[in-house]
Amino acid sequence: MTKLVENAAGRLVPVEINGTPAVPYQGVGRYRPQGRKAAPPIRSCADYPADGDKTAPDLKTALQRAGLRDGMTIGSHHHLRNGDLVANQVFRAAAALGVRDLRWVPSAAFPCHAPLIELLENGVIHHIEGSMNGPLGDYCSQGRMRGMGVLRSHGGRWQAIQDGEVHIDIAVIAAPTADPFGNATGDRGPAACGLLGFALADSLYADHVIVVTDNLVPFPCIPWQIQGNNVDQVVVMDRIGDATKIVSGTTEITKSPDRLLIAELTARFCDEAGIVRDGFSFQAGAGGTALSFALFLRDIMRERRIKARFVRGGSTQYLVDMLEEGLTDYILDGQTFDLAGVRSMRENPGHVNTSPFTSYNWHGKGNFASLLDAVVLGATEVDVGFNANVVTHSDGRLLHGIGGWMNCLAGRCTILPVPSFRDRIPVLVDRVTTLCGPGELIDVVVTERGIAVNPQRRDLLEKLRGSSLPLRGIRDLKAEVEEIVGGPPAPPALGEKVVAAVKWVDGTVIDCIREVRG
Amino acid sequence: MTKLVENAAGRLVPVEINGTPAVPYQGVGRYRPQGRKAAPPIRSCADYPADGDKTAPDLKTALQRAGLRDGMTIGSHHHLRNGDLVANQVFRAAAALGVRDLRWVPSAAFPCHAPLIELLENGVIHHIEGSMNGPLGDYCSQGRMRGMGVLRSHGGRWQAIQDGEVHIDIAVIAAPTADPFGNATGDRGPAACGLLGFALADSLYADHVIVVTDNLVPFPCIPWQIQGNNVDQVVVMDRIGDATKIVSGTTEITKSPDRLLIAELTARFCDEAGIVRDGFSFQAGAGGTALSFALFLRDIMRERRIKARFVRGGSTQYLVDMLEEGLTDYILDGQTFDLAGVRSMRENPGHVNTSPFTSYNWHGKGNFASLLDAVVLGATEVDVGFNANVVTHSDGRLLHGIGGWMNCLAGRCTILPVPSFRDRIPVLVDRVTTLCGPGELIDVVVTERGIAVNPQRRDLLEKLRGSSLPLRGIRDLKAEVEEIVGGPPAPPALGEKVVAAVKWVDGTVIDCIREVRG
Repeated sequence: MTKLVENAAGRLVPVEINGTPAVPYQGVGRYRPQGRKAAPPIRSCADYPADGDKTAPDLKTALQRAGLRDGMTIGSHHHLRNGDLVANQVFRAAAALGVRDLRWVPSAAFPCHAPLIELLENGVIHHIEGSMNGPLGDYCSQGRMRGMGVLRSHGGRWQAIQDGEVHIDIAVIAAPTADPFGNATGDRGPAACGLLGFALADSLYADHVIVVTDNLVPFPCIPWQIQGNNVDQVVVMDRIGDATKIVSGTTEITKSPDRLLIAELTARFCDEAGIVRDGFSFQAGAGGTALSFALFLRDIMRERRIKARFVRGGSTQYLVDMLEEGLTDYILDGQTFDLAGVRSMRENPGHVNTSPFTSYNWHGKGNFASLLDAVVLGATEVDVGFNANVVTHSDGRLLHGIGGWMNCLAGRCTILPVPSFRDRIPVLVDRVTTLCGPGELIDVVVTERGIAVNPQRRDLLEKLRGSSLPLRGIRDLKAEVEEIVGGPPAPPALGEKVVAAVKWVDGTVIDCIREVRG
Repeated sequence: MTKLVENAAGRLVPVEINGTPAVPYQGVGRYRPQGRKAAPPIRSCADYPADGDKTAPDLKTALQRAGLRDGMTIGSHHHLRNGDLVANQVFRAAAALGVRDLRWVPSAAFPCHAPLIELLENGVIHHIEGSMNGPLGDYCSQGRMRGMGVLRSHGGRWQAIQDGEVHIDIAVIAAPTADPFGNATGDRGPAACGLLGFALADSLYADHVIVVTDNLVPFPCIPWQIQGNNVDQVVVMDRIGDATKIVSGTTEITKSPDRLLIAELTARFCDEAGIVRDGFSFQAGAGGTALSFALFLRDIMRERRIKARFVRGGSTQYLVDMLEEGLTDYILDGQTFDLAGVRSMRENPGHVNTSPFTSYNWHGKGNFASLLDAVVLGATEVDVGFNANVVTHSDGRLLHGIGGWMNCLAGRCTILPVPSFRDRIPVLVDRVTTLCGPGELIDVVVTERGIAVNPQRRDLLEKLRGSSLPLRGIRDLKAEVEEIVGGPPAPPALGEKVVAAVKWVDGTVIDCIREVRG
């Protein structure tokens, strides 16, 4: 049985994860790292082809040449999202080589990776550390994975690799375009996905780096989002991704009247709180509500002739329109969610690709997340202490990754526009099932029934005095919701087994997830 | 007295440099590095301002906050060349703080840094490791520097820092444009110098990084050639550079009939040797002969409708013209030598900035230098074994840095277009005063009196059979020159003291430089 201790957030967390001691969460900004960054082996050009041609005939050969063996750690990125055709092939090749007990550290896994459940079952893969969206999350929730899952934010993954907490033996980087030297970019090619920022840490810190592409161009591949000087081998395959599942032609704004109301309230809140002013910045995701928020904000900006200094993506057509219309100087983009985003990144010098290092790494000399005037994020649950959950549902099932969510909480004003209930299950609760974001970092919760401002943000409350916005206490909102749906959600049926640990941005354990029963 | 041993090139070299053991040169590609790369300390955002404002009031305060103390190592770059106004101020501030025995590791020092001789004399600076052009080289040659100088190529400087051979305590990065977070670029601003690639290693590996700028812009500074996430402090000063001395409006082609002949022979050689073909690549410097060579080559390319895949700079108006005319897909640029280069890098996505990591680092997974079809370089001396010298003159005086010269020898065809004598002193000699490039890596020497092909390159000799080019043996050429000028150069008057070590691209010691007498 995993030994648990109570951390600074009052959550019981494991003191050991897969045999390695873990540090319990100590509070926001409390844990101070020691030591020096991880460092890859020194190589010599004498051991690489002088003509720069690092191509290997196929993935299996490349893995063999990389020295793949039992128990190794494989890194991969998720820019191809649910259209990724590479990760499954990597592990099938590993299986064909008879290798076992691999640790997979993807920046995220998607439903397209469901076939890997078979390899988790037959011992090729030991466990996954990374966001598990959908079937793999469900599999983990059922307590069927041999090792403990580890959920990290995008910044947390960088931190863990940088700090040497996670040593990647072999990184496999799916690249929409690459040259034989290993320079690679995501902004062009049949499987274009925009950028490759999630793979940057892998390219810098892994012992061995394999680039896989279906669009080999002569040296130099420009831009080189991944630098060939960090790459050991290049594998060309027919198809690395299903373009229709990587990016959609359009990302849809919400049509739900409730969600539209939430989006509008969020934009009005930003305006009345004095956030929308010349040179400001904001980040909003690609969900329907967030997109609608961006449109309402755009209207305010147009009307008042306000220009943002930068907006942060996940980029979409809507952000690209704002850039092209001159409503912002820059898009600082962490991933492109549609084809307009990919095109803009390729063509517009004001559409700049970023990485978890620049944007989110807590163990750096500052990061971009804390410079944002407003961040608009989702949540599966928010409790009366403004603590929020983004990975599990109220039934305890792990179904979502953390993404950049945790990292974004460092912004100057963190806003969660959420419906007060979903499918008659309240989103506002007494205590979140899984703690992902400490309440002290969450400033505002916007629901269709009113806006709750964190009482710690007296400055915001002061600014909004006399506002016509429906400001309410979070407990009031919760009580109203419970009255509508007939009480708080049923407690989840959980077993004792800890199936996954949730790491805070500094590598400490903020919470853990238990096996779901029945 | 420094103990010396004979290395694989037959040169006597010190076994110890400034108290640290040194590895003698073992032959091309023979030395294999061990261990892992250097790693900077892990930091936490908790220790940096959340609003991203890292500005310090002045250089002295910044150095104090950085913990400057006796014996530390300071890194700096030379993109501002002879117009640099920062380095002298750094050491004056250090002197004002009463600090002593500093080691200065610039990527190069220029005549504008002559005032630092006073600080070398009074103990503030202990010694310099880096290219010493002009007065500082002369000072070192006289045996007056307390420590031993260390000369490294651009790639060798990266290698030494990356491998932990040189640990930089504090890097001071002069930046023509920067934001308060520390993002910085060289491609714009009153002291625009194009790029900041020589400072990249410093930003990645130093314990503490200070960006100094005279053009502060609001976050984000785009492009971020130096990433603010690696920067600790930002200092704003009135003027970081004298623009007239950083870049010249035009770089002049040679007017000397002999040099024009050499340039033309070099271009014709490339053509007849089959190097000039669609998709080829070349690198030529910014000297008068190299520029003329590029023009002759351009004429051949125009006439035969040949397009290069990439050319490498030092960029100038001439390379920029080729890019804009469509004679090359890309310029991969290591430094901009004129304003046309700066503008082109700023505006043209095909004009790409590089760093010693991508271009030259021998302890990487390959580098760009070995991918070049032809490299055209200078030399102060070449001997009958095709060995070449680029740092000292025949009188033994250290007057030039290595630059990327050593690294470029990895190219597929290394050509030295040199006059056979200068000021009645032969360039072709029996044995070079200082060995910088082993003869096996130098393929062709082009003089006004004929072209000598290294006998090891039978493939080239084969291709040129029946050519009308004046192909001659290198000993013949040397004999002819000696006849004209009245014999070989007088041997330099050298003392016993070793004043500087010359490092090969892999960090081993290929030669050393002795004190010049009289």
